[in-house]
Amino acid sequence: MNIKLGKNAYGKNAVNLSKIIRHADYHEFRQISVSVALEGDFETAHTLGDNSKILATDTQKNTVYVLAKEHFTDGIEDFALYLSAYFLNNNPQVTRTNIEIIEHPYQRMAFNGDTHPHAYIGGGSEKHTTSIVQDADGLVITAGIKDLLILKTTDSGFEGYIKEQYTSLKETADRILATQCQATWTYNSTSLNFTQLFGQIRTTLLKTFAFHKSLSVQQTLYAMGEAVLQTYPEVTEISLVMPNKHHIPFNLDQFGMDNKNEIFIATDEPFGYITGTVVRG
Amino acid sequence: MNIKLGKNAYGKNAVNLSKIIRHADYHEFRQISVSVALEGDFETAHTLGDNSKILATDTQKNTVYVLAKEHFTDGIEDFALYLSAYFLNNNPQVTRTNIEIIEHPYQRMAFNGDTHPHAYIGGGSEKHTTSIVQDADGLVITAGIKDLLILKTTDSGFEGYIKEQYTSLKETADRILATQCQATWTYNSTSLNFTQLFGQIRTTLLKTFAFHKSLSVQQTLYAMGEAVLQTYPEVTEISLVMPNKHHIPFNLDQFGMDNKNEIFIATDEPFGYITGTVVRG
Amino acid sequence: MNIKLGKNAYGKNAVNLSKIIRHADYHEFRQISVSVALEGDFETAHTLGDNSKILATDTQKNTVYVLAKEHFTDGIEDFALYLSAYFLNNNPQVTRTNIEIIEHPYQRMAFNGDTHPHAYIGGGSEKHTTSIVQDADGLVITAGIKDLLILKTTDSGFEGYIKEQYTSLKETADRILATQCQATWTYNSTSLNFTQLFGQIRTTLLKTFAFHKSLSVQQTLYAMGEAVLQTYPEVTEISLVMPNKHHIPFNLDQFGMDNKNEIFIATDEPFGYITGTVVRG
Amino acid sequence: MNIKLGKNAYGKNAVNLSKIIRHADYHEFRQISVSVALEGDFETAHTLGDNSKILATDTQKNTVYVLAKEHFTDGIEDFALYLSAYFLNNNPQVTRTNIEIIEHPYQRMAFNGDTHPHAYIGGGSEKHTTSIVQDADGLVITAGIKDLLILKTTDSGFEGYIKEQYTSLKETADRILATQCQATWTYNSTSLNFTQLFGQIRTTLLKTFAFHKSLSVQQTLYAMGEAVLQTYPEVTEISLVMPNKHHIPFNLDQFGMDNKNEIFIATDEPFGYITGTVVRG
Repeated sequence: MNIKLGKNAYGKNAVNLSKIIRHADYHEFRQISVSVALEGDFETAHTLGDNSKILATDTQKNTVYVLAKEHFTDGIEDFALYLSAYFLNNNPQVTRTNIEIIEHPYQRMAFNGDTHPHAYIGGGSEKHTTSIVQDADGLVITAGIKDLLILKTTDSGFEGYIKEQYTSLKETADRILATQCQATWTYNSTSLNFTQLFGQIRTTLLKTFAFHKSLSVQQTLYAMGEAVLQTYPEVTEISLVMPNKHHIPFNLDQFGMDNKNEIFIATDEPFGYITGTVVRG
Repeated sequence: MNIKLGKNAYGKNAVNLSKIIRHADYHEFRQISVSVALEGDFETAHTLGDNSKILATDTQKNTVYVLAKEHFTDGIEDFALYLSAYFLNNNPQVTRTNIEIIEHPYQRMAFNGDTHPHAYIGGGSEKHTTSIVQDADGLVITAGIKDLLILKTTDSGFEGYIKEQYTSLKETADRILATQCQATWTYNSTSLNFTQLFGQIRTTLLKTFAFHKSLSVQQTLYAMGEAVLQTYPEVTEISLVMPNKHHIPFNLDQFGMDNKNEIFIATDEPFGYITGTVVRG
Repeated sequence: MNIKLGKNAYGKNAVNLSKIIRHADYHEFRQISVSVALEGDFETAHTLGDNSKILATDTQKNTVYVLAKEHFTDGIEDFALYLSAYFLNNNPQVTRTNIEIIEHPYQRMAFNGDTHPHAYIGGGSEKHTTSIVQDADGLVITAGIKDLLILKTTDSGFEGYIKEQYTSLKETADRILATQCQATWTYNSTSLNFTQLFGQIRTTLLKTFAFHKSLSVQQTLYAMGEAVLQTYPEVTEISLVMPNKHHIPFNLDQFGMDNKNEIFIATDEPFGYITGTVVRG
Repeated sequence: MNIKLGKNAYGKNAVNLSKIIRHADYHEFRQISVSVALEGDFETAHTLGDNSKILATDTQKNTVYVLAKEHFTDGIEDFALYLSAYFLNNNPQVTRTNIEIIEHPYQRMAFNGDTHPHAYIGGGSEKHTTSIVQDADGLVITAGIKDLLILKTTDSGFEGYIKEQYTSLKETADRILATQCQATWTYNSTSLNFTQLFGQIRTTLLKTFAFHKSLSVQQTLYAMGEAVLQTYPEVTEISLVMPNKHHIPFNLDQFGMDNKNEIFIATDEPFGYITGTVVRG
């Protein structure tokens, strides 16, 4: 039986780039991390060490910095689209690109309602993401949110599940629901106001989470995805990853006290891991 | 020459606790991580394995959860003071306590200006901290901020430093100044409105950073500390740790382009590490 | 257009378990992290909040601990197979399981050639992994290595790649090749001596890396995969992920010195990211 | 009351450097992370933004790389001593240096007993550390180990501790003792064979841990420190940090089974935190 190369890709990851866009009355600061992956005619690179078709990952990195000067002026989706087309058009040996960008959030400082023109505060875990996968057949564009830590202190329960020999969990009609949510959705067009849409979809996700009477993480996940698809015709499908960050009531009974759902052990591991995609069809 | 026990301490770290405080019209959600360290008459525990004076770290953990029910109702400084006194008063073998609390920030979600009664968003890197060190001589109480990522796109330069044989850095009158700041300050009293003061001091730190015409990280650090001491008589001294998160201009010259201070390589390591304490005297 | 549930799964992640297996003359210590994911008839859980078919993730966790007592006695592959079959056979609503186990390495301490019966040293980044995906059509079993940090100081070059307008990388016939390798391979049977095979395949990977005259990461990756397929008929395909951990020669020229390939800047980001699968066919 | 500058320092952290030392028959690969901190006459830098006495941290970084060429040829202690003296002697404004180096461990690959001349495996969590603090009064040199994950499956108990109202921990004469140990010791001379001593002290620490009949973490910590002081007259004192990485017996009783000390929940947080210094006197 022969041995041969299967699926393969290569590129530069974690190209960390910041940019100052100087507006008339303030400086816009942006910080992103770009990853490029290329697929194509790279078989002899693997089997013979022939690098003649290899665009060095160092060159890819340079390209990202250079192109950012003129073309990173709006949403990360727009810049990712530009990069994807650039690598595809300038490299005939490349048959598919995969560009991913993560944007690190910074907000302008504000004092007594006045926004400062060039001072920023950053460091939130929540990040805006995008990916473009493009080949001769077209492209798929997604946007998303990563590490969105959301939590509700009530309107969440978990009851009616299977009771069997290894079940020890107690049913509850009132628990903390907390998740470090990741949402990724697919757009049906490359000509959208991505920045505005991102903000709107984010609000829809938060609002649905906040107002949902949750019977399970699964049900809340579905409601969040459904709300996005109902509201935004530009979105064709949405995937949600909702790890259940458990807040476990501390046992005060053992010390003769009553825990009226107020003191919890905040745990990281193990965690429930709930994933689902909501689609049209 | 004899061998003997020197300085020693023990306790429970990372007691991760969350609490819901139910107000009339909303739920207040708090998440903290408590560390307890005890010093005292523990020599025979070390030399003989005599545990008779050892308050098990598991018991310390239980104590934190139990006491949180009645006594974690306000600032983390207040709860730390309570815990410190509790351990000291209930354990004659303990001569010194060191309580540290880190609070993880959560904000109530708001939609169209309406704050939701029980839905929260968290995940910021910035954390509120406190520590109490207490013994028979009294106590030292500090509060602080950790992992405060702040950045300004201008009003920062670095010039006039030593030029010697291994100097390659170019002087600049206009650079990005970014730091993941840690500030820790000491209060002169245990009877303060800690929550309000924390917010005010945080604003003073941010404001000074934002409006300072920085000639170096050292100068900005000093200005920030000085502003806090000038404004808050309750603060006796303040220490600042300001790692310099470098944003290095990407060399566009090599590609025949001009980098007008707009495209940067955002780096994590190595980093300048600037620390200083500002005191009264 | 209707909205409906697409692909979905749920389970418990990071079930961190340790076990002592008491042999006649020594204690065997094992530490693993188990993740369970279930797919199946869970549509109404999402759309109606009907939990009647939900095996709580807490119950899954308990099940892992309970079954470890009798059934985690050999390789993690064997335990994963047992868990997978258990969840599938005992839950008619489940149509597909995905069990993943990561084993954290511990070695028995040895002094002057004598292995200690119950003292261990751990903490290596390298981990042994396995995954089982099983449904009515059968199962796919993989094993692998994660976070294997390997490096060679010579016998590695990178030349002959595309030179274009944004290329600044210099060709070299002698560079450091370093990678934090991840390898995952598929077995053709569930009745193998997995522990022995893992050790043998690991050695083949290391040996190929060490002795290969590398013209590129791609070529070394392919050689490593090819060697495994050539040597082990039990392996049907192998995927390798080889991030290029760059060690960049420090520019001593600027200080009138010569860097004879001896002093390097060790960098984490950005990094080349090379992935490839080697298959039979 | 006046406001003034208190204790302050600055320098470059995380200068990540790798070096190939070419021996006749093999390549020695070393990877270290160097941190430099300087104290001295820097008051006007803080108060006036006067940088004329500032050795830029970028220059410090360059200096580390340059000096590594000739002077990083043996132990990290030797290189740290050289760096410390260099910065102190060449910068009259500097009154105190603090050099810290962490070495990342790499081992040469071996196949059938043959050590490969230039292929390495790395990635262990355990690291060798050193620090030099030097001023006009002399210097303090320490060496140490960080992130040493050690564990024993028996010969460890914890009994006879205080039982009070919040005690729920059960006494045990047989438990897992696991710790991610940090040890730091001070040498009485700068003219020692540091590399050899490090290896010997490490073995003494491991051996004492392995063979100790532990009644508590405190007792084992003291025994480890005592053994080092007893064996190595060059060591004047040793500090140990031993977080107790708890392995908690899983409750099998609830499912009608017996946990004969064999199945444990491996936890990260909270953790007991035991620290102690053993001194001569």
